[in-house]
Amino acid sequence: MRGLLNNSGFTVWFTGLPGAGKTTLAKSLEREIKQQGFPVELFDGDEMRRHLTKGLGFTREDREENVRRIAYVAGIVTRLGGVAIVAAISPYANSRQAARDEIGNFVEVFVRCPLSVCAERDPKGLYAKAHRGEIMHFTGVSDPYEDPRKPEVIVDTNQDFPQQSLEKIVGHLHSNYLLPQLSRW
Amino acid sequence: MRGLLNNSGFTVWFTGLPGAGKTTLAKSLEREIKQQGFPVELFDGDEMRRHLTKGLGFTREDREENVRRIAYVAGIVTRLGGVAIVAAISPYANSRQAARDEIGNFVEVFVRCPLSVCAERDPKGLYAKAHRGEIMHFTGVSDPYEDPRKPEVIVDTNQDFPQQSLEKIVGHLHSNYLLPQLSRW
Repeated sequence: MRGLLNNSGFTVWFTGLPGAGKTTLAKSLEREIKQQGFPVELFDGDEMRRHLTKGLGFTREDREENVRRIAYVAGIVTRLGGVAIVAAISPYANSRQAARDEIGNFVEVFVRCPLSVCAERDPKGLYAKAHRGEIMHFTGVSDPYEDPRKPEVIVDTNQDFPQQSLEKIVGHLHSNYLLPQLSRW
Repeated sequence: MRGLLNNSGFTVWFTGLPGAGKTTLAKSLEREIKQQGFPVELFDGDEMRRHLTKGLGFTREDREENVRRIAYVAGIVTRLGGVAIVAAISPYANSRQAARDEIGNFVEVFVRCPLSVCAERDPKGLYAKAHRGEIMHFTGVSDPYEDPRKPEVIVDTNQDFPQQSLEKIVGHLHSNYLLPQLSRW
């Protein structure tokens, strides 16, 4: 495995509404970084809830605990010189700030998409359930989402193709010397 | 930070009764490996219960979940080429086997000490409480501990000084080419 520049790891933290495209982008970024030969770990909010944060619900307190645990693990990866990619709604600005403080080398990516578009995509049928009142505490419907104020990167998945969003993110990593510039970009 | 031999990480997993000396040994091993300049992360069972496994109790099911989560994180560190040190009672052989299977590069250290000696040391006053019936599910008193059948290393903290136990463990890591041999050993 190759070492990163100065052996310094970092975390790319995707935040946004359900259905905004966080997981899709996180996976394509993971693929890209793997192809470049760097150590990378993907932490997907939904996946995490199946093990590391099993038993936690969707109250504010539980969401905060969820984000805290993901930040803890992403921090370890970052300290060890790897790349942690997190895809988690992480609706509360405070929680994301705490994650940033803990991790240090932190790139916040706001996956922006209008609520109406997310609800129309509804890849898991959850918006429909939330609208029927079958799910409580659903972000965007019955639970708040606090927009990032100063994210490092904003991608608009309603306007841009996934490949364009990916290039925007990788471009940021290059210009900030987190990833070495390769000729193909 | 130095890379390990072949960049291959590993986990040293300390198991044993409460009061056997797991945390003490884990900390001195952590210090030793840090001094040698390698990336290392310590996961102490008691510490973990304050964040990563908060809310879990001491039933068999919860203990297994506790060990599963620690194994998950130790596995990440190992994959990234770091050294994970775990100090956790981890009383069930099955759970430890599952951790071994998940992690791969796994060194099980049985911190052996007679129950009567552990209960006499009682560093946290927990044996006394368990004997008075104030703590349920206390390993060694009201909950089982399954001895490792084929641990990589056994240390007898009732007979040996901590430094001797540490040397035994580091000796194993050297002879198995997990740590490079340094002249001072």
